[in-house]
Amino acid sequence: MARDPFVVIGGDAAGLSAASKFRRESDRDVVVFERGRWISYAHCGEPYFVKGTVERLTDLLSLSPEDAADRGIDLRRSHEVVSVSPGERTVTVEADGDRFDQSYAELLVATGASATTGPFDTTLDGVFTIHGLDAAAAADAYLTPSDEYDRDRLGDGPVDESRVDHNAALDPPERAAIVGGGYVGVEMAEALVARGVDVHLFQRSTHLLPPFGEAVGERAADHLGDQGVTVHTGTPVAELVGGDRIEAVRYDGERLPVGMAVIGVGVTPNTAPLSGTDAALGPGGAVRTDAYGRTTLPAVYAAGDVATARHAVTGAEAWVPLGLTANRAGRAVGSTVAGDPTPVGGVAGTAVVKAFDVECGRVGLTDAEAAENAGFDPVSETITAGSRSGYYPGGDETTVTLVADRSTGRVLGGAIAGRDRAAIRIDTLATAIEAELTVAELERLDLAYAPPFSPVWDPVLVAAKVLGGRVDG
Amino acid sequence: MARDPFVVIGGDAAGLSAASKFRRESDRDVVVFERGRWISYAHCGEPYFVKGTVERLTDLLSLSPEDAADRGIDLRRSHEVVSVSPGERTVTVEADGDRFDQSYAELLVATGASATTGPFDTTLDGVFTIHGLDAAAAADAYLTPSDEYDRDRLGDGPVDESRVDHNAALDPPERAAIVGGGYVGVEMAEALVARGVDVHLFQRSTHLLPPFGEAVGERAADHLGDQGVTVHTGTPVAELVGGDRIEAVRYDGERLPVGMAVIGVGVTPNTAPLSGTDAALGPGGAVRTDAYGRTTLPAVYAAGDVATARHAVTGAEAWVPLGLTANRAGRAVGSTVAGDPTPVGGVAGTAVVKAFDVECGRVGLTDAEAAENAGFDPVSETITAGSRSGYYPGGDETTVTLVADRSTGRVLGGAIAGRDRAAIRIDTLATAIEAELTVAELERLDLAYAPPFSPVWDPVLVAAKVLGGRVDG
Repeated sequence: MARDPFVVIGGDAAGLSAASKFRRESDRDVVVFERGRWISYAHCGEPYFVKGTVERLTDLLSLSPEDAADRGIDLRRSHEVVSVSPGERTVTVEADGDRFDQSYAELLVATGASATTGPFDTTLDGVFTIHGLDAAAAADAYLTPSDEYDRDRLGDGPVDESRVDHNAALDPPERAAIVGGGYVGVEMAEALVARGVDVHLFQRSTHLLPPFGEAVGERAADHLGDQGVTVHTGTPVAELVGGDRIEAVRYDGERLPVGMAVIGVGVTPNTAPLSGTDAALGPGGAVRTDAYGRTTLPAVYAAGDVATARHAVTGAEAWVPLGLTANRAGRAVGSTVAGDPTPVGGVAGTAVVKAFDVECGRVGLTDAEAAENAGFDPVSETITAGSRSGYYPGGDETTVTLVADRSTGRVLGGAIAGRDRAAIRIDTLATAIEAELTVAELERLDLAYAPPFSPVWDPVLVAAKVLGGRVDG
Repeated sequence: MARDPFVVIGGDAAGLSAASKFRRESDRDVVVFERGRWISYAHCGEPYFVKGTVERLTDLLSLSPEDAADRGIDLRRSHEVVSVSPGERTVTVEADGDRFDQSYAELLVATGASATTGPFDTTLDGVFTIHGLDAAAAADAYLTPSDEYDRDRLGDGPVDESRVDHNAALDPPERAAIVGGGYVGVEMAEALVARGVDVHLFQRSTHLLPPFGEAVGERAADHLGDQGVTVHTGTPVAELVGGDRIEAVRYDGERLPVGMAVIGVGVTPNTAPLSGTDAALGPGGAVRTDAYGRTTLPAVYAAGDVATARHAVTGAEAWVPLGLTANRAGRAVGSTVAGDPTPVGGVAGTAVVKAFDVECGRVGLTDAEAAENAGFDPVSETITAGSRSGYYPGGDETTVTLVADRSTGRVLGGAIAGRDRAAIRIDTLATAIEAELTVAELERLDLAYAPPFSPVWDPVLVAAKVLGGRVDG
């Protein structure tokens, strides 16, 4: 009798990376159950589709069902795994109204995360979470006058056409409220301004992009303001108001008429298939995994936005749902299941976001409280320094926040913002942090210098010089 | 009796960094002897002055004599130190035709390097080495029709006016030969094309930018060709031909008429002041120094382009004359002499250069022979990968060469070329190399991903993935 297949739940970054890698290294079967119609799409590109930078919705697909078949992957779309029986090593699958059991030799849960909506009524017309291609297509259709809507924008994919049609038929909004000043909020502000909408961005806490720290968040907010966005920080939205369609948002006792709302208040891991099991969960309610992506259930792995990972700075379990680590963890699990044990790698929480023309990046522990909770004694400095030699045009003042442990000098985290090559500079800090360099070692790095690209002292080095005076290590 | 001062020979990057740092940390006197009229100027900006990107020659100055005085530095320009007597702890200085001795408590030799000219007759009109502000000013004047020459270009500095006037009076060239395809050659090709000159670039070896490896060198050559430069690789120039003024270059039995030649065949350390001493020299004939910049003479330090340093990969003595490490080493010596012993730091040979629109970077050991000589067993891979998500416009295929030691997997060197943020990406490799990461560790780094800046797998990670299959570590 043939051995049971490797079963993967979820046909996006982690799941298909795992299945592809597994098939390259093994001649055993792999079955991927994806509950939706789309597979392998670029979440991060959705705001740029809405903005119009990306021409067609299907440009965001990186792997087609045919590609998956060519790789020898048994891909079943519109198949939802509703439960897992670790004792029997089976999953129960619903498809076309039917239910069946599928045995597995190993199981990978790669179900990703879904946008949360907080207390908000997202059934109103004109309210969107930009999470998934159907949502992006619907928002784009909603923003386009019905007599100008061009279905070529959709490309040739399994889009929810009735949802698109419904939204295309509605009048475009003149004003939008964006609820949440994280990645989605900031990127959608840029997209909606490009679409000619008057944008109000509401952020509950005191600055935008909280994981990037105060200096970067304030710089992003200033720049959004320069670009015509009305930024309301420290301002939670109380309610979305409307009948069928959104009419206004309420906040601070105010009522602002809007024709659109974008909700970007976070994501939550899709752990439902494991809800009937003893699988341990960790931070954020994500599935607990070890260095090889193993859950606490036998032969069950988890990877990507649904799973925890080891934090590169604290060494502790963390939940940081981002694209690269999802791809990498899936790939590692594919190797491991194929017989080549491969660690999934840590997460440093490296992230970059484009806020109009300002590139923002962050990595590691930038928050003093988080650093203290991890047992460090954090000190932090924020500097600004030119991105190029002063005499060479095109540079920009670059803001760098650097955090280190006072007694050891170890670099714990950093953030950066600027218009000239700021985002890629965060990789220098990511590398330094994962290599456990001290501030003194960072300051002594031989980094690149040429007038068009960097001053003699790169902004990262300037930050290290200044912080170096405040650490003992 | 007051203690003798700290004496510095050379008023550029290393020398003035040392003097400035010393004065901040000490109330003792520091005397800086500079043989020329200029101080603290940006060599690396000279091609961009000739190109016209930099408006005024004096924009390239970072510190004025008045600034130096404000910092409490006793700066003596047009003072040449002609010899050092380590036994007496004195230097002999020539100024205004006079000679005097100056005692020192500590001495720093920061005399930099000078352009070498090979076998070429650089006394001909129209022949330039772009090394120093007077040379840049003369080349700019030579390239400008005399009736269009604007002295405002010079700013208000101690320029060699007679040399400028002489060159401004000559007819501009229609064609130029650049001898040497290193930094100066590549940058001057861009500058001269911008000035409307037909440029022929001659490179003795088989590819441009030898320290960047073959793949980057070939990519730079292709791009220079696309921009209208005629690139002659594997083609040494035999002779510059002319009477008063250059008329042609000879090579391979050919004679190419030119009205200008730029010689960029390398630099040599200015060790003359130490020539009568027992100071040990190292690679390249540069002054041997230890981890604190100390020469083999008592109380005599050396820093910057005149000095050797410890190579971050091999641990051996190396001579890599570049701007950041010169500044850093000077600063460290200033601290050390002031009583706070500070290592000068290693050199990783990190360098970036703009070849028209292609950004090129390199770090560490990229040459197999150099790696073997250092006791490594080098393996190398070159890949190309997109700089952004494929669906996001503005990206470019990025070339990455990665070199590692086969048995340990340690990353030894790398090079990169591309039009989209390629240069700054070399800092990721510089950090990884100085932190002694392996290819596997590099591959597992959590680097930044966002569609406008990077694909999921940054080109650096793609290179690590590919090379990872070829190392044991």
